[in-house]
Amino acid sequence: MSSDLSALAQPPRLMIDEAVKAALLEDWGRAGDITSQATIPSDARARAVVASRKAGRLSGLGFIESASRLTDPAIRVDPLAHDGNVLKPGTAVVRLSGPARSILACERVGLNFACHLSGIATATATFVERVAHTKASIVCTRKTTPGLRAFEKYAVRCGGGANHRFGLDDAVLIKDNHIAVAGGVIPAIERAKAHVGHMVKIEVEVDTLEQLREAMTAAPDAVLLDNMSPESLKAAVDIVACQALTEASGGIELDTVTAIAEAGVDLISTGWITHSAPILGLGLDIEIE
Amino acid sequence: MSSDLSALAQPPRLMIDEAVKAALLEDWGRAGDITSQATIPSDARARAVVASRKAGRLSGLGFIESASRLTDPAIRVDPLAHDGNVLKPGTAVVRLSGPARSILACERVGLNFACHLSGIATATATFVERVAHTKASIVCTRKTTPGLRAFEKYAVRCGGGANHRFGLDDAVLIKDNHIAVAGGVIPAIERAKAHVGHMVKIEVEVDTLEQLREAMTAAPDAVLLDNMSPESLKAAVDIVACQALTEASGGIELDTVTAIAEAGVDLISTGWITHSAPILGLGLDIEIE
Amino acid sequence: MSSDLSALAQPPRLMIDEAVKAALLEDWGRAGDITSQATIPSDARARAVVASRKAGRLSGLGFIESASRLTDPAIRVDPLAHDGNVLKPGTAVVRLSGPARSILACERVGLNFACHLSGIATATATFVERVAHTKASIVCTRKTTPGLRAFEKYAVRCGGGANHRFGLDDAVLIKDNHIAVAGGVIPAIERAKAHVGHMVKIEVEVDTLEQLREAMTAAPDAVLLDNMSPESLKAAVDIVACQALTEASGGIELDTVTAIAEAGVDLISTGWITHSAPILGLGLDIEIE
Amino acid sequence: MSSDLSALAQPPRLMIDEAVKAALLEDWGRAGDITSQATIPSDARARAVVASRKAGRLSGLGFIESASRLTDPAIRVDPLAHDGNVLKPGTAVVRLSGPARSILACERVGLNFACHLSGIATATATFVERVAHTKASIVCTRKTTPGLRAFEKYAVRCGGGANHRFGLDDAVLIKDNHIAVAGGVIPAIERAKAHVGHMVKIEVEVDTLEQLREAMTAAPDAVLLDNMSPESLKAAVDIVACQALTEASGGIELDTVTAIAEAGVDLISTGWITHSAPILGLGLDIEIE
Amino acid sequence: MSSDLSALAQPPRLMIDEAVKAALLEDWGRAGDITSQATIPSDARARAVVASRKAGRLSGLGFIESASRLTDPAIRVDPLAHDGNVLKPGTAVVRLSGPARSILACERVGLNFACHLSGIATATATFVERVAHTKASIVCTRKTTPGLRAFEKYAVRCGGGANHRFGLDDAVLIKDNHIAVAGGVIPAIERAKAHVGHMVKIEVEVDTLEQLREAMTAAPDAVLLDNMSPESLKAAVDIVACQALTEASGGIELDTVTAIAEAGVDLISTGWITHSAPILGLGLDIEIE
Amino acid sequence: MSSDLSALAQPPRLMIDEAVKAALLEDWGRAGDITSQATIPSDARARAVVASRKAGRLSGLGFIESASRLTDPAIRVDPLAHDGNVLKPGTAVVRLSGPARSILACERVGLNFACHLSGIATATATFVERVAHTKASIVCTRKTTPGLRAFEKYAVRCGGGANHRFGLDDAVLIKDNHIAVAGGVIPAIERAKAHVGHMVKIEVEVDTLEQLREAMTAAPDAVLLDNMSPESLKAAVDIVACQALTEASGGIELDTVTAIAEAGVDLISTGWITHSAPILGLGLDIEIE
Repeated sequence: MSSDLSALAQPPRLMIDEAVKAALLEDWGRAGDITSQATIPSDARARAVVASRKAGRLSGLGFIESASRLTDPAIRVDPLAHDGNVLKPGTAVVRLSGPARSILACERVGLNFACHLSGIATATATFVERVAHTKASIVCTRKTTPGLRAFEKYAVRCGGGANHRFGLDDAVLIKDNHIAVAGGVIPAIERAKAHVGHMVKIEVEVDTLEQLREAMTAAPDAVLLDNMSPESLKAAVDIVACQALTEASGGIELDTVTAIAEAGVDLISTGWITHSAPILGLGLDIEIE
Repeated sequence: MSSDLSALAQPPRLMIDEAVKAALLEDWGRAGDITSQATIPSDARARAVVASRKAGRLSGLGFIESASRLTDPAIRVDPLAHDGNVLKPGTAVVRLSGPARSILACERVGLNFACHLSGIATATATFVERVAHTKASIVCTRKTTPGLRAFEKYAVRCGGGANHRFGLDDAVLIKDNHIAVAGGVIPAIERAKAHVGHMVKIEVEVDTLEQLREAMTAAPDAVLLDNMSPESLKAAVDIVACQALTEASGGIELDTVTAIAEAGVDLISTGWITHSAPILGLGLDIEIE
Repeated sequence: MSSDLSALAQPPRLMIDEAVKAALLEDWGRAGDITSQATIPSDARARAVVASRKAGRLSGLGFIESASRLTDPAIRVDPLAHDGNVLKPGTAVVRLSGPARSILACERVGLNFACHLSGIATATATFVERVAHTKASIVCTRKTTPGLRAFEKYAVRCGGGANHRFGLDDAVLIKDNHIAVAGGVIPAIERAKAHVGHMVKIEVEVDTLEQLREAMTAAPDAVLLDNMSPESLKAAVDIVACQALTEASGGIELDTVTAIAEAGVDLISTGWITHSAPILGLGLDIEIE
Repeated sequence: MSSDLSALAQPPRLMIDEAVKAALLEDWGRAGDITSQATIPSDARARAVVASRKAGRLSGLGFIESASRLTDPAIRVDPLAHDGNVLKPGTAVVRLSGPARSILACERVGLNFACHLSGIATATATFVERVAHTKASIVCTRKTTPGLRAFEKYAVRCGGGANHRFGLDDAVLIKDNHIAVAGGVIPAIERAKAHVGHMVKIEVEVDTLEQLREAMTAAPDAVLLDNMSPESLKAAVDIVACQALTEASGGIELDTVTAIAEAGVDLISTGWITHSAPILGLGLDIEIE
Repeated sequence: MSSDLSALAQPPRLMIDEAVKAALLEDWGRAGDITSQATIPSDARARAVVASRKAGRLSGLGFIESASRLTDPAIRVDPLAHDGNVLKPGTAVVRLSGPARSILACERVGLNFACHLSGIATATATFVERVAHTKASIVCTRKTTPGLRAFEKYAVRCGGGANHRFGLDDAVLIKDNHIAVAGGVIPAIERAKAHVGHMVKIEVEVDTLEQLREAMTAAPDAVLLDNMSPESLKAAVDIVACQALTEASGGIELDTVTAIAEAGVDLISTGWITHSAPILGLGLDIEIE
Repeated sequence: MSSDLSALAQPPRLMIDEAVKAALLEDWGRAGDITSQATIPSDARARAVVASRKAGRLSGLGFIESASRLTDPAIRVDPLAHDGNVLKPGTAVVRLSGPARSILACERVGLNFACHLSGIATATATFVERVAHTKASIVCTRKTTPGLRAFEKYAVRCGGGANHRFGLDDAVLIKDNHIAVAGGVIPAIERAKAHVGHMVKIEVEVDTLEQLREAMTAAPDAVLLDNMSPESLKAAVDIVACQALTEASGGIELDTVTAIAEAGVDLISTGWITHSAPILGLGLDIEIE
């Protein structure tokens, strides 16, 4: 029921359109699709279906719609699935029909977005499954592809994950260097509390249980437990005692994520799902009319 | 000696700066790095070194330089390596020094570019090694990350690979659909020859040896041999008999690339190196002065 | 000592430059400063001082620097004050020297920014003074001038105020309509908790003490007490009992703000300081050499 | 009858759309309206009416239309008033209906424009009323909010005022510094006449009646009478004797404007109406269906 | 039949729209068409026909359509001709109907594009006619108007010409300087072959027959024969013997082009048709309803 | 002495840089200058001189400087001439020295601007010479190349001409259609006077002497005498009797311009100098060090 609420709320259409417009111009260069211009008559029409080549999780259907509309309003777009859907090999996700040249001209751009984002959603879903029996959420980081952060964060949500902060400005994350300059974890947290707005949460990164105990006296909203073993994480969760959110981070992999989640942390963050997930192959099969 | 020639020619500085500027604004949002603003005095200075966490191939050093310069001209940037260099775990690639807040404000953006591009260079280099004893080149496709194509193509060159066409406009690639509409492979090639400029090369995709024989009568510049076995590829190379470039494509993997190269093709194209290569981890270690 | 920390951290230089560039082009139109071109020789040099015409609080000095540098790098800029400084009538804030035509060409743009932002800082400071004996902070809203939000939020900080959320995306603020659709204040807060990231704070707007009691059972991070009398606010503060931040809002004026602050709320928000504050007059006095 | 002629001609739709697009992205940040996404189902629909909270003059209705259309073409927009209309408290100006999330996502941006511009129109109208029995026009200056000049100039027209030059390039305004460098008011005017195009008018600022007499010998199109008393202005008007337009300027306030107008000047310019006018409060009342 | 294939494929609509949008804003400045606003009621409607004033070749009709649509979607656009058509004095090419102010507001921009591009098409056609009895194609260069290259290349195709490379990146053209640095024409070609992608063609410029013979041993795709007499060109064609494309270049004029074409070259390039062709006069005759 | 005043005031550097940046990216496409990258080592240095190939008038030197600086700040630029200078065949205008690849990468863009603008300056100068013995100024129109208007207007000034209005917004020009709708030339002028700002001049186009007499009763600032013979123009000048500026327009050519000027008009406008002037050939001769 909640599937139409926040998690799958697509980034604003205007943002998608701007990104797609830039990508179309990148692919078209100065002369557009010269192959189709040379070989396909301007009045030829086609129908096409985009389908998944492998199993995975869908994200980015709106980019295919946007690429079609911005290339040629005469392309008709009929969605056959929704972002967040589980895909099997062969699942069709959208049908296009209209001028053949136009469909071919926007094919690659739409697919490049959808394959990339679906790859992230699929990778996220794999992690999410491994921790489904725990209370842990899988969250992403700021290690995203330049220019695509909002879209990749959305793809993480499509895969069942959750979002960490979107940038340097929407939440405080105090790390080693900040602590060193501030003269300790407590003054660092206190400075943050004194200087940022009341709607901004504060998280602090700690490396040891001792540092954690110290940090907790300054009452941060969340603690990032960096590179700790499942045992240490358990101890950390006990120390925090629900007075802050607990986030495990650092070198999380599919093999280790379950044990980490079972340690009782609230959140597990991984850059891998955004910076290193392979694409989910989607392909367009065209039928010239 | 030729290492300073084409392969490693960086995209124009203006193009890098535009992409970096957008990425900085994406990361900074509306308020910039509020954590550092709250905890680090404006006059604190720092030195930092960016080093590789793993073995790989470097690409994208110029983006770290650009991010530093555009954030704060007061940051001094001393490169310690060159794009294309082989990196070992721990190899330092650049040293930064200047205002601590500024270095922290641009750290993630510079790294996001460099890790992504170095990941592509590293993946490419792995493929290149497997075919080093043959004449085959590893080439990339148009399956690139939206907005980053020119940079990813450059990363492929840093890894020892070569570039296929950059977009729909700079070369002709005739595929199934074009052939179907044109009424056969020969008329498709002929139409292309008749309609595109004299500086544009024409490649045609064929699925079978029979189709290849037919295509060769129309004298394309290159043939894309789609999803063929090493045996078929050998036969194809014989048929082509050096009258065109031969490119193997379709589901190329590290396990299969050597056999394919040994079939004698000129080029092996793979989307994997641009759309699915994991990043190469680079990290910035800061030392507040 | 904390004056060089968060409150006065200027928006990133890149953001200031982009806004200034657009404003310069807006003022120059297609031909630039035709009056100076017609009457002042290209090699004439000038010195100028920008000074306050009235008492107030400074904000936006960086825009004068940016306008000068972007118009002509040959203009030398010597700041004589800092943003956040208290100004008396006649206080000089920056000295410029260089080509006379260039100084005249950027004068109005630099002043338009600095007068506008200093006006907001000054208005904020007036409110801040009235509540200085209480724990209440003066915070701004999203009722800002289109295109200038980040800068106006900064001006509020220069005046001693604090910032509420910067946009629709960095914090949750549940209002009447959301509550109506969600079927009550409790389900609305619960939906928000379920759907937004862990680094996002949740505030809920309530109109009555009864609604406040209900809301507090769902443990929001902050409550916005809309249009309540000082008496009701006191009661509300008691109900909340430090379990959430309390924000008074709605028709706050200079005459009423003290009583509201004395009711014990943590925050008092007002759109007036950003959308209706008159400018602080700054003027440039030029001396042609 | 002339109400549909120049005075109320709206800036080109393309210009409004560009400004609104930027403002929407400013408000949405990277994730859009997360509150509505979390609490309001994607298929909820709503109707809303925008009405004035106070008495005033309407300007900027087109920005609400633009914000709605650019956010979601599915929002239906029915205007209930026209820019330039006199508003009473409660006067409805536009009705919106469509997807609830979309209406909430664009509400603030549309209102921020319309409140700001209506504030300027209202302030202008107040000045205009005070001089209605004279021949004087109220005109605005280049002291406008960066990025909004064309729109603020339009708002002045909506309030019954007129526009001075739009920038540095569309008319000549010779001030003290130009006169000083040119070696006197006469050579300054002569240089301007010699160097600017034939479609460009020339105005010269004078501080004294003596300077005015000198200036008139060079036949400027208009004279700006700076900071003169009503008595001096009367004398100035006599000196000019309809050979140029006369403009009073400098510290004009509501209390003084009538006396100044009665001195017989053609124009009275004031920066206050654009840089310091408080907004006119407009609010959106939503009804979820 | 091939008229709907490559030669006349218009640049992507998105590219045309971006260029037209910029041109409209350039013409409108900050206030739009103040003459029409002042003299024509907002509800006046008009019909208009754009017709050629002289004989020539049409190119750029899509820019008139784009300018109309972007100015006001209420303008109806009915094309009466196609790009590439031969025009006589008086031939009507498009009919517009809709709001009179809107039609007048976009008239000049649409015409400026269409007259400029039709001028290029017309100039090209004149050259093409002179060589129609030979196999030579008329091709354009990179000597184009900044910002309009893709459109001017299209106009050349509308005139029956063909396109040389579109920029520095889509083909190799080795000139004197490259040869000098590389240490001779042969190493220059070899370096190019070694360093550029397999889909990139290589052309080399030669000044003498001796240099040509040397160059041919390195098997370039094309040779540019610079400033040679028809006799030398004939000799050159013999030397090349169909092993490469031959292009004559340098000071080609209408008087000399036939003799050059008759020398047997494949291509004749001229910058004149893009950088110096006079416009083809098209005019809009409006009829206010 | 006045040569450093208005006529030769260059458009703002920011405007030049924006146009040059776009042109560089247009020429570089996605990979930059692949020929030089392939054949010229990255550390090769070069010196170059740009010189005129023909006689003419210089305009646009700043664009060569901008292209050099934006491509590579390491290029040193030494101007040898000034815009507005008379050039002989062979006159050197600027010397460049620095990285060879960088100089070659920006050569064409800088030249494309400078040749185009110098062509306009040269054409203008030719017209200006023909009327030098009269009081007539040669002025340009809005028939300019899209995107380049401000620069072309500047080029006209470099050639000794003057500028008409820059766009639809900075002056009123009442034409046939406006007169028809307004119900006559007098009401058209009156409407304009009533509705536009006091700094805006009003010109009216008339076709007959009768219409001129009527128009003069409404006291326009200027009259455009459309397509009149020298005799009619003389009569028109008499009718106007210095009460307005007189502009001759319509089909002005080099052969006819002297007679028209001798009729005594103040201004002669011609679109030809901006829309149809051939370039002035400038070339770059490079010397690799």
